[in-house]
Amino acid sequence: MSTRTNEWETKITKIESNKISIHGYAIDELMGKATFAQMFYLLIKGELPDRNTSRLLDMMLVSSVDHGVTPPSTLAALTAASTGAPINGAIAAGILSINAHHGGAIEGCMRIILEVKEHSLREAISPENAAYRLVDDYREKRIKIHGFGHRIHTRDPRAVKLLSAAEDLYLSGEYIQILSFIHSALEKVLVKELAINVDGALAALLLELEIPAELANGFFIMARVPGLIAHIHEEWMLQKPMRTINTSLHRYTGKPERSITKAQL
Amino acid sequence: MSTRTNEWETKITKIESNKISIHGYAIDELMGKATFAQMFYLLIKGELPDRNTSRLLDMMLVSSVDHGVTPPSTLAALTAASTGAPINGAIAAGILSINAHHGGAIEGCMRIILEVKEHSLREAISPENAAYRLVDDYREKRIKIHGFGHRIHTRDPRAVKLLSAAEDLYLSGEYIQILSFIHSALEKVLVKELAINVDGALAALLLELEIPAELANGFFIMARVPGLIAHIHEEWMLQKPMRTINTSLHRYTGKPERSITKAQL
Amino acid sequence: MSTRTNEWETKITKIESNKISIHGYAIDELMGKATFAQMFYLLIKGELPDRNTSRLLDMMLVSSVDHGVTPPSTLAALTAASTGAPINGAIAAGILSINAHHGGAIEGCMRIILEVKEHSLREAISPENAAYRLVDDYREKRIKIHGFGHRIHTRDPRAVKLLSAAEDLYLSGEYIQILSFIHSALEKVLVKELAINVDGALAALLLELEIPAELANGFFIMARVPGLIAHIHEEWMLQKPMRTINTSLHRYTGKPERSITKAQL
Amino acid sequence: MSTRTNEWETKITKIESNKISIHGYAIDELMGKATFAQMFYLLIKGELPDRNTSRLLDMMLVSSVDHGVTPPSTLAALTAASTGAPINGAIAAGILSINAHHGGAIEGCMRIILEVKEHSLREAISPENAAYRLVDDYREKRIKIHGFGHRIHTRDPRAVKLLSAAEDLYLSGEYIQILSFIHSALEKVLVKELAINVDGALAALLLELEIPAELANGFFIMARVPGLIAHIHEEWMLQKPMRTINTSLHRYTGKPERSITKAQL
Repeated sequence: MSTRTNEWETKITKIESNKISIHGYAIDELMGKATFAQMFYLLIKGELPDRNTSRLLDMMLVSSVDHGVTPPSTLAALTAASTGAPINGAIAAGILSINAHHGGAIEGCMRIILEVKEHSLREAISPENAAYRLVDDYREKRIKIHGFGHRIHTRDPRAVKLLSAAEDLYLSGEYIQILSFIHSALEKVLVKELAINVDGALAALLLELEIPAELANGFFIMARVPGLIAHIHEEWMLQKPMRTINTSLHRYTGKPERSITKAQL
Repeated sequence: MSTRTNEWETKITKIESNKISIHGYAIDELMGKATFAQMFYLLIKGELPDRNTSRLLDMMLVSSVDHGVTPPSTLAALTAASTGAPINGAIAAGILSINAHHGGAIEGCMRIILEVKEHSLREAISPENAAYRLVDDYREKRIKIHGFGHRIHTRDPRAVKLLSAAEDLYLSGEYIQILSFIHSALEKVLVKELAINVDGALAALLLELEIPAELANGFFIMARVPGLIAHIHEEWMLQKPMRTINTSLHRYTGKPERSITKAQL
Repeated sequence: MSTRTNEWETKITKIESNKISIHGYAIDELMGKATFAQMFYLLIKGELPDRNTSRLLDMMLVSSVDHGVTPPSTLAALTAASTGAPINGAIAAGILSINAHHGGAIEGCMRIILEVKEHSLREAISPENAAYRLVDDYREKRIKIHGFGHRIHTRDPRAVKLLSAAEDLYLSGEYIQILSFIHSALEKVLVKELAINVDGALAALLLELEIPAELANGFFIMARVPGLIAHIHEEWMLQKPMRTINTSLHRYTGKPERSITKAQL
Repeated sequence: MSTRTNEWETKITKIESNKISIHGYAIDELMGKATFAQMFYLLIKGELPDRNTSRLLDMMLVSSVDHGVTPPSTLAALTAASTGAPINGAIAAGILSINAHHGGAIEGCMRIILEVKEHSLREAISPENAAYRLVDDYREKRIKIHGFGHRIHTRDPRAVKLLSAAEDLYLSGEYIQILSFIHSALEKVLVKELAINVDGALAALLLELEIPAELANGFFIMARVPGLIAHIHEEWMLQKPMRTINTSLHRYTGKPERSITKAQL
């Protein structure tokens, strides 16, 4: 078979002998100046984030790093690990369990926020009004409105922290406002309190940072990989192979509550 | 079928209603105080890293974030993306291509360094002497000595930066010394220059940070996920589905060389 | 955490001590009486297929068992294998590259055939007429009509054989007829010949066998696994690790053309 | 970057315009003459199997097609499916849970049988004697001897059927004999009955068919894919997304026991 001769383009990383540049910056200059969180932003967007964006990015990633043993991604990773999977197979099994119903609510909520914005512009109505109409419409059609409520938390501490941090860092804009309009509309329609969850908060913040909705699942996967690694490692350390894994029967036996001291960080 | 009644233990994350603690720290306290890189360390080791360790960790992660389109993990991710895979499937295909011969040299080199250390203790000989014997022995048995040389770089800029940073941050210890003994022995035996590569430098640094060798591949996977996401996204943006991907035919058309300005970070 | 106490149902396989039954049949009775292809049908549909259906099923699976080294699923599997992946990781990487644009045309064509059928019933027009309208409509909206044409074959030998076998085995019905109406419409609209490909033929046959469209990709994956295993094994046998895999540069060096002799089977 | 110009070889499938040949046989000749099980053999070994080998192959694949909801591969596939994974992601998650401790016992037992054979040849002792020594040695070193006992079955109906079929089909040879020597030795040493399980029987039969040990996991994966597809489909049909999957709490509600009638096959 003959060889195609036309070159294809990549704009991310340039590799030359003894020289690696990411979006134009030499990797040995980036090392020590840029954090890992900033590199995600640079890789995706082509530019380095400013200081406040960088701080928010780290908070967003930290918020999603782990949620114990019950999420499906953890169960799948532990299940693979328990059969003797190498670490990449176990991580991959976990990642393959991050889809529309686990992690996917971030993208789901981003698309709802964008729909409200577009509707508001298209119909020349206020975002608040557009939010009401969407909630009404979705309720009627029985479509899930992602980003609100949680099977365990009535007040998701991660969402609270993310939204207040965005305010403090001057990164709160139209998308967070639309999220809050949807929230009000939803509580009014349901006639009950229903808190914004971490997915909802992340959705609005990713939009504020102009990270595209189709990368939301990638962002969540990146954030969750360290958690998966920790659980796989724990499975190796504490458990026998091929055990029956019943996530309803676990017990936390780790460190007691404590605070970060100034000297630590 | 009957239900097992004995509880199993986890020491990583405690989930209560409205409260999530990782190794004892409330997640909303960690958010804003700990970086994403520090969270990896906390999750794996149960304690937060000090400031210098944190800086080194970020540099280590940044060093491995991407290496262009030719690594097999990138090719597998692009191949899956090109067929219409969702982002988690494409990332998983990439991760499944991180094994002994790609990424795995970090763990390979860690095990060699540990072997030199143990040999030195067991036989009561100097680490330098033990390094020589190992290199001789491996050369004779034709076993690969991981961590040296690179198909593209004669002087790997990432390795140079990592090793000098470890020195500057007072994190250079016995493992870096053993790596350097192995390096000297190898060059003497081969009678040619052969630089320490990024895998070798990461191997020694992970040992200095007391991160276990069996997690080395996990560390590399975590570091590479943002690069995979960027390449998958670029594939979606620039290419047609089901193209023939010939990595030898790519061309870099991104940003020209530039430096980080003080205002940026 | 408390244990859920309600049992969930499964209707596929009953496991008792020393007894395994699949949809009611003891596994040791199935072994020797049912072929592997028949088991797929039994597992999915709950009943054993008749003799003609069984013969067609085997032909359908055989048609898709392999297509050389250029399909993305093969490239991804070889890429993972080349880095030292265990066989399950390499197979998984291959399977993760079977999506809408590779393998997915089977489901795509099934949905088009079903749309023609529904349109014909709903509008009380002939299937032939409905097929014309769909082709017109899709062409105008620039939606791909799956199941026709091939990048390599102008006359796909697998499709020819499948369609004639369905006829011979009295398994050709309304869905094959609709496929043929779509085919005629498409050729008339394009004013050129464009053969039904293997995806189109499989689509119509799966519908004739009443296998649901959402399982089409699963069917193709099942069929392709033996091919992936053979290529992974060949990679191990013939190639060095971490080679640059350029699928455009391969050469077939296997057995010359030959025929099956009566004594063989 | 420049293009490599040397071609690489493949011996499996030749693709020409309108012509596909697998190990020399035209695919449209294979379709209708060869079964799916025979294609696995042809792909791996380069020749078609004879009639008795073909019958045994089908029985071996049928034996491993499913084992209910408790195997880790099923749990991982259901977990991924429950989060909304596409079918290939769910199958891949299942396959990533087929490793040393699940499925892997087939390869494990093959390697033990081969070790007994080699030991017998090397030391010029009887295979029976070599089997004894291996069992003694493994027991002392506390290495698991794969292929015997089962957490649910004291007399594995699949193993019984496979071994008697091999006898009936004149395919029982030295490897089955060695398996039986290991079995006797093990029962004598343990002073209790411990039946050969399906992994042990498959191990001996794969060796009789001269299928290499490094493909055993691939064989098991191929056999299990239809079972995974059936369970994923059932999850879609019967369950809500994101349920807590406790495999200890399932109940079989499918077809009652029945026999295959002559008319069916």
